[in-house]
Amino acid sequence: MSLSQRILSGDIRAAARLMRNIDDNLPSSRTELQDLFPHTGKAFLIGVTGPPGAGKSTLVDQITAAYRKQNKRVGVVAIDPTSPFTGGAILGDRIRMNRHADDEGVFIRSLATRGHMGGLSRSTADVANVMDAMGMDVIIIETVGVGQDEVDIVRLAHTTLVVMVPGMGDDIQAIKAGILEIGDLFVVNKADRDGADKTARELSLMLEMNRYAEGSWRPPVLRTEAQRNVGVEELVETMDKHRQWLMNSGEINQLLREKDSSLLQTLLKERLFAEVYDRIDQDGRLREILEGMQVRTQDPYSAVERILGERLNS
Amino acid sequence: MSLSQRILSGDIRAAARLMRNIDDNLPSSRTELQDLFPHTGKAFLIGVTGPPGAGKSTLVDQITAAYRKQNKRVGVVAIDPTSPFTGGAILGDRIRMNRHADDEGVFIRSLATRGHMGGLSRSTADVANVMDAMGMDVIIIETVGVGQDEVDIVRLAHTTLVVMVPGMGDDIQAIKAGILEIGDLFVVNKADRDGADKTARELSLMLEMNRYAEGSWRPPVLRTEAQRNVGVEELVETMDKHRQWLMNSGEINQLLREKDSSLLQTLLKERLFAEVYDRIDQDGRLREILEGMQVRTQDPYSAVERILGERLNS
Repeated sequence: MSLSQRILSGDIRAAARLMRNIDDNLPSSRTELQDLFPHTGKAFLIGVTGPPGAGKSTLVDQITAAYRKQNKRVGVVAIDPTSPFTGGAILGDRIRMNRHADDEGVFIRSLATRGHMGGLSRSTADVANVMDAMGMDVIIIETVGVGQDEVDIVRLAHTTLVVMVPGMGDDIQAIKAGILEIGDLFVVNKADRDGADKTARELSLMLEMNRYAEGSWRPPVLRTEAQRNVGVEELVETMDKHRQWLMNSGEINQLLREKDSSLLQTLLKERLFAEVYDRIDQDGRLREILEGMQVRTQDPYSAVERILGERLNS
Repeated sequence: MSLSQRILSGDIRAAARLMRNIDDNLPSSRTELQDLFPHTGKAFLIGVTGPPGAGKSTLVDQITAAYRKQNKRVGVVAIDPTSPFTGGAILGDRIRMNRHADDEGVFIRSLATRGHMGGLSRSTADVANVMDAMGMDVIIIETVGVGQDEVDIVRLAHTTLVVMVPGMGDDIQAIKAGILEIGDLFVVNKADRDGADKTARELSLMLEMNRYAEGSWRPPVLRTEAQRNVGVEELVETMDKHRQWLMNSGEINQLLREKDSSLLQTLLKERLFAEVYDRIDQDGRLREILEGMQVRTQDPYSAVERILGERLNS
């Protein structure tokens, strides 16, 4: 049986195997993903992002527990910074959510930020698709950071949660503004800390500056203390409300189109580059161009245009 | 006269114009960059990165002033988070380094994080190349954040400065590890704050865990108070030392090859995608594929492989 057939029949180990193949970018993984694709589109995808130190992992742990109480199966894709020494993800599956380790209703996968050749958002989408086809009801995608990559990854979700924390640095205003438009829900975590009120108030004020059309979703600002599991239930209810709103308003259709378009673009970008780069590497032109660039007799701009002028497969 | 000719003859306004054209991705900007390329490779490129709130902008301001005292011309490329309301860069040229506003030896350009179609590192390289051809002696590239994008951008530099700040959040260890291998110099800024010693010590310890080959560069950990201009002179001296080491050890050659290779890859990736995406958009296939994906009769994986099988230009 193929990996995809085994995954569709509930084989967890086959899923883990395919995810490793996706990481290693094996060509066979594309065929498996192709076969799984018709079985995707059922899960509720939640994106969780925010600056480092906001307590996102703990919050994701509690959200997972809350959905488990509702007897929903939960997948978690955690994008972790990579260790320069081991090459592996630092926060890793290992230390993540030990309490769910024996729970067959929870499937956790860490992806490291390095070594994806800029294809991290593609890998994340692929892994989420495998979890979706496996029958996970909820898939949580967690990213550390506030860069463009994180924004792209969060675009994979139906509902995006931005986690803030009281009392951060000077240019927090800038970051807040940068993530203001991607959040469907904002959470001030560690809400027992000094400055929680101020942070929540500032966020609300900045959100109010935005114009909302009649009937559109107005992102609420919630408070949690993930460590003590305070406010998590309300958070989960509010996420479910957002999902309901997506369905009832018909916004879900636009969102799904954007998700599909984004996956297609990511795949196209990555595969085109891989094919063409491989070819110029093998026929020796890559070396020739780089040598020319070194002595400035060759500029990269015209070299690339020359390559574009050729057959893609020949 | 073409923009590139005007730039080579010292016309600042022509440079600003070309940078706008690069932002707008005008095809003509590629021809201009092509003509400027032989005149690049002379400037010393410094990358400055680190978590939000570390005081990077102020530090860059002071470094600029220090190089101006040496009568060197300084270019600054600042990657700023984008405002969701205006679409423009938040920290912007406007509020950046007012004191250098009337100094013809300083050229500052802010790039916004949004709207680059994943091509931010290409735009940054292009703008740095324009400044290089203009005759800037030092070019400082400043990024906010710790994501993969930032790492890619910092790879454009000869010397990379990682700015930390005392007393950050819980997962600071992870971030530190993530940026440990990209820093040639580490700076604990706001060194008058509580915890500065601890942060510096932790950084040094983590760096010592690394194995250094005989004669290789060992990244020092410095302290600054950028606001009061404390420690900046020593920082500039240490950066110059790193540059000297690059030259004397011959490491510079490897570094320049990597920079060239990275620029070529970035250009290739972006142009290939743009050309092919445009084509499938215009001939109606994009819409067809997306419609098929929506009802799950078409998977994106085989659609992309089909496109790869075609002529690139036909």
